[in-house]
Amino acid sequence: MLSERLKATVLHDKIVSADEAAGWIQDGMTLGLSGFTRAGDAKEIPLALVERVKKENISLKVNVMTGASLGSDIDKLMAEAGIVNKRLPFQAEPAMRKKINDGEILFVDQHLSMTAEYIRDGVFPPIDFAIVEADSITEDGLIIPTTSVGNSSIFIEHAKEVIIELNMKQPLSLEGVHDIYSVGKHEGRQPIPIIQGNQRLGTIGIPVPFEKIRGIVLTDRTDSPSTIAPPDQETKQMANHLIAFFREEIKKGRLTNKLAPLQAGIGTIANAVLGGLIDSEFEELEIYSEVLQDSVFDLLDSGKALYASASSITLSAKKLEEVFRNFDRYKDRIILRPQEISNHPGIIRRLGIICINTALEADIYGNVNSTHVSGTYMMNGIGGSGDFARNSKIAVFVTKSTAKGGQISSIVPFVTHVDHTEHDVDVLVTEQGYVDLRGLAPRERVYQIIENCMHPQYRPQMYQYVEEAFGRQGQTPHVLEKAFSWHTNYKKKGTMLLET
Amino acid sequence: MLSERLKATVLHDKIVSADEAAGWIQDGMTLGLSGFTRAGDAKEIPLALVERVKKENISLKVNVMTGASLGSDIDKLMAEAGIVNKRLPFQAEPAMRKKINDGEILFVDQHLSMTAEYIRDGVFPPIDFAIVEADSITEDGLIIPTTSVGNSSIFIEHAKEVIIELNMKQPLSLEGVHDIYSVGKHEGRQPIPIIQGNQRLGTIGIPVPFEKIRGIVLTDRTDSPSTIAPPDQETKQMANHLIAFFREEIKKGRLTNKLAPLQAGIGTIANAVLGGLIDSEFEELEIYSEVLQDSVFDLLDSGKALYASASSITLSAKKLEEVFRNFDRYKDRIILRPQEISNHPGIIRRLGIICINTALEADIYGNVNSTHVSGTYMMNGIGGSGDFARNSKIAVFVTKSTAKGGQISSIVPFVTHVDHTEHDVDVLVTEQGYVDLRGLAPRERVYQIIENCMHPQYRPQMYQYVEEAFGRQGQTPHVLEKAFSWHTNYKKKGTMLLET
Repeated sequence: MLSERLKATVLHDKIVSADEAAGWIQDGMTLGLSGFTRAGDAKEIPLALVERVKKENISLKVNVMTGASLGSDIDKLMAEAGIVNKRLPFQAEPAMRKKINDGEILFVDQHLSMTAEYIRDGVFPPIDFAIVEADSITEDGLIIPTTSVGNSSIFIEHAKEVIIELNMKQPLSLEGVHDIYSVGKHEGRQPIPIIQGNQRLGTIGIPVPFEKIRGIVLTDRTDSPSTIAPPDQETKQMANHLIAFFREEIKKGRLTNKLAPLQAGIGTIANAVLGGLIDSEFEELEIYSEVLQDSVFDLLDSGKALYASASSITLSAKKLEEVFRNFDRYKDRIILRPQEISNHPGIIRRLGIICINTALEADIYGNVNSTHVSGTYMMNGIGGSGDFARNSKIAVFVTKSTAKGGQISSIVPFVTHVDHTEHDVDVLVTEQGYVDLRGLAPRERVYQIIENCMHPQYRPQMYQYVEEAFGRQGQTPHVLEKAFSWHTNYKKKGTMLLET
Repeated sequence: MLSERLKATVLHDKIVSADEAAGWIQDGMTLGLSGFTRAGDAKEIPLALVERVKKENISLKVNVMTGASLGSDIDKLMAEAGIVNKRLPFQAEPAMRKKINDGEILFVDQHLSMTAEYIRDGVFPPIDFAIVEADSITEDGLIIPTTSVGNSSIFIEHAKEVIIELNMKQPLSLEGVHDIYSVGKHEGRQPIPIIQGNQRLGTIGIPVPFEKIRGIVLTDRTDSPSTIAPPDQETKQMANHLIAFFREEIKKGRLTNKLAPLQAGIGTIANAVLGGLIDSEFEELEIYSEVLQDSVFDLLDSGKALYASASSITLSAKKLEEVFRNFDRYKDRIILRPQEISNHPGIIRRLGIICINTALEADIYGNVNSTHVSGTYMMNGIGGSGDFARNSKIAVFVTKSTAKGGQISSIVPFVTHVDHTEHDVDVLVTEQGYVDLRGLAPRERVYQIIENCMHPQYRPQMYQYVEEAFGRQGQTPHVLEKAFSWHTNYKKKGTMLLET
C-alpha cells in the first residue's frame, strides 16, 4: 500500500509522526497549508499542533495561508486554541469568524488568484513550512495532490521546507486529474496558453526537490463533506430566472445554447442555480470554475456538461462516495488547477466566462457586498468572486431578496461594504426575478432592480428613498444621512422595515 | 497634400463637407467617435451636427460612445445642444458633467478595457456610424489614426458605416506608431502575445473595406492641448514619497532600480508624480499606460525611460509642439494601441505593472472613490484605473490629503462611492506620506493610513471615530450612523471639521 503512494523509496526515511512534525513548528512561523473549499486540506499536522499547544501549555502563534476554506474543523480548532496570528486568503468557519470579528485574528481577505503573486513578489513573510496533502509522490519527485490544488504549488515552490501529509484514503485514481503550471516571475513571463477550458498545460504533480521535504506524515483522515443545503423553492425560482435570462440572450443572438464556459461560486445558492441547468435545453456546457460541487457532477452525468476545470472538488458525503466509486467515468473530463490559473483574470477574459456568485446584499445601483454583515462583521471573504466578476463575459450575482424571515432586505439603498462595484455587476437574480444591468446608467438601474429583484414588502420604502435621493440630482443620487438607515433600523428594532 | 493622406484615389469621390456628413445622422442613432483623453477626437462632424441641430431647430438625440474624454469642446457643445441621450465610457467636461448630474444625459461609467467586449457581444445598440479621425488612409485600406487609437478599431469593425475625418494638420510622421490588434470573439480567441510592453502585434492602421466608408471629411482642426497644471509643492512631495516607497522595495529585494512597467492615469497629480522620477536613480524604465502625458516625454528625453506604450498622446500646447517638431527622436520608442490592449487585465497581470492613479477620496480601510463627489455627483468616470489597479503588481493611488482649502479631508471614515475596493488598493500616497497596505488586515490599516496619509488637523476626529467603531468589534469596524457624518457636515457647514 505505502509503496503505491510513496514510490521514491529514498523518502521512506522521512516518514514521521504528526506529533513530531508539529513539534518543528515554532512561534512566529508562517505556514502554507493545502486546502481549498474544504477539499484536500492538510489535516494531521494542524490538529497535532493544536494538541501540542494545549498539552505543553505554550504560547505559540503562526500565520496561516491556505488555498481557501479548510475542513476537518481545523480553522475552528486553531482559532479556539488561539494559535493563529494572521489568516489569509479565505475562511468560512464560525468559530474562526468570531475570533476575526473580535479582533483576535488578523484576516486578510484576498482575491484568490492574487495570493500566489504576493508570495512570488515577497510581499508576505517567507513561508517556513508548506504542509500539503498528497495522494502519492512519484519516483521523480512529483507530489500528486488530492482533491484540491489551491495554492499548494506556490507554497511548495517558495517554502523553506515542505511537509507532506500522505493521505492513504484519498483515491489513487486522482492521479492524472491535476494540471500544475507555474506562470513564473513577471520578467519574461509567457502567455498562459489556454484557449479552451479543458486544455492541459503542465505536469500531473507538483515538482519538489527531495531535500526540501522535511518530513512525511501518513494519514487516513478523509475530507469533510460539503455542507450545502439542497435546493429549495426559492433557489429553484432563481435557477429558472437565470435560465430565462439565458434564453433571452439566445433570442437576441448573444449566446448559443452552448452558453459560455460557466463558473459558480461555493455555496448552496450557486450550486442550486447551476443544478437548475440539468433540466434545461442547453447542451455541451463547459465548466471553468474554482470549485466543483455536486451539481457539476450531475451536469456531467446528464451529458449536459462536456468537462469541468477548477481548483477543487467539494462534494456532499453521498455524492463523494458515488463520484469516487465511478471515478473513471469522470476522470478524462476533469482538471484540477492551481487557483492562480483557475481564477486567472486573463484566462477568464479570454474564454468569456459566465460567472455566478452569491451576494450578501446589493444596492439599487448594482454594487454588491459579498463579505460583511452591516459593513463590519466578516462572513467568509471575497473568495474568487472578484477574479471572475471583473473579468467575465457576464457577471451574475444571486441572492434571496430577503433574509432572517423577511426582516432583512438583501436589496438596500447603499451596500455597507463594496466587494463588487457597479462597474462589475452585470446581472442580478433573486427569487423575484432578474435584471440585466449592462449598458444601463445608474438612474436606469434603480427602477429595474426594485421591480424585478426586490421583495414587494420593501419596495414602497425604497421608492421613498429614491424619490428623496433623485430630488438631490446626481449621477448616482443618494441621501447620505439615510443611506444606512435600513441597517441601523435593523440593529435597533430587528427589522429593516421602517415605520411609516 | 491630399494625395499624401488619401492614397487610395478611389476614395476621392467620397469626400464630403462636414455639414453633409452631419446630415446623415438621425435621431436615435448610436455614434462611435474616436478620441481618448482629448487626443485624436473626431471634431468636424460632431461640431457640424451641433450647428445643424441649432440651425434646423430639430429635436435629435444620439448615443455617443468614445474612447475616453474628448477635446475641442465637443462634449460641452453636444451637451449644451441637448443632443446626447446616452454617453459612455468616460467624459471629463464640466458642462456635460452638469447635464449628467442633472439627470439629462445617461452616463454609463465603464472600465475602459470593457467597452470593446460589450460591443463585440452586442450588448450595446448597434453603432450606426463610426466617426474616426485619421492621419491618412493607405492604398490597401488601412486607416492610420492620429494621436489616439482608443476604441476606433472596434467602432470601425462593428459600425454599419464609417465616416473618416482626415486631419490635414496631424503630423504624417505618426504613421508607424500605431499597433492595431484585435482579440476577436471569445470562441477560439488566442492569447495576446505580448511579453514585453514595446512589442508590436498587428498592423499600423485599422483595416476597413472601402465600401463601408460612407464619407470622408477634411479638417485642419488640431487636438485640444491638455489642461494639466504644473507640479506644485504638494505633488512634488507626493512624488518624493512614491520614490521613497520604491527605494524601500528595492532595499527589500522586491524591485530593482528598473522598477516595473509603469502606468499613470490622466491628470495633474499622476503626471507630476511620474515626472518626479526624472531626478531619481531609477533607469531603463518602461511605460505601459493608457495615456502619454508631458512627463512621459520628459522621461524619454532624459533617457530614464526606454519606451512608452499607451492608447493616446495628450500634451500641453508647448510640449506638443516640441514633441512633433522632433518626433523622429521618439517614434521608435512609442506605440499606440487600442484601449482594449493598453488596458487589458491579462497583459497588466502578465507584465506586472506598477500603476499610479488618482483618488478622489480614500477611507481608513483602503477603499477608494475615484468618481463621485458625496457619493452622488459624477466627476469624470473610473476610466482605466480599475483595469490597472485590479490586475497590477502594485496599485498606487495618489491624492492630496485635503481639498477646498482644507475644508475637505480626502481620507474619510467611509468613502461615499467605491470604485476600488480594499482588495485592490496596495499603496496610498498623499503629500503627508505613503502607506503600503499589502498584507495588512483592515484593523492594521487604520493606524497606518491615519498616521502616514491623513492631514494632521483631521486625525483627532478620525481617532474618535475609530475608537467608537472598534468598540463594536468586527473585521472592518464601522459606526454606520456616523460613517458619512463628515460629508453631511460639509454639506451643512462647509467643512468636514466636526465641532468638538
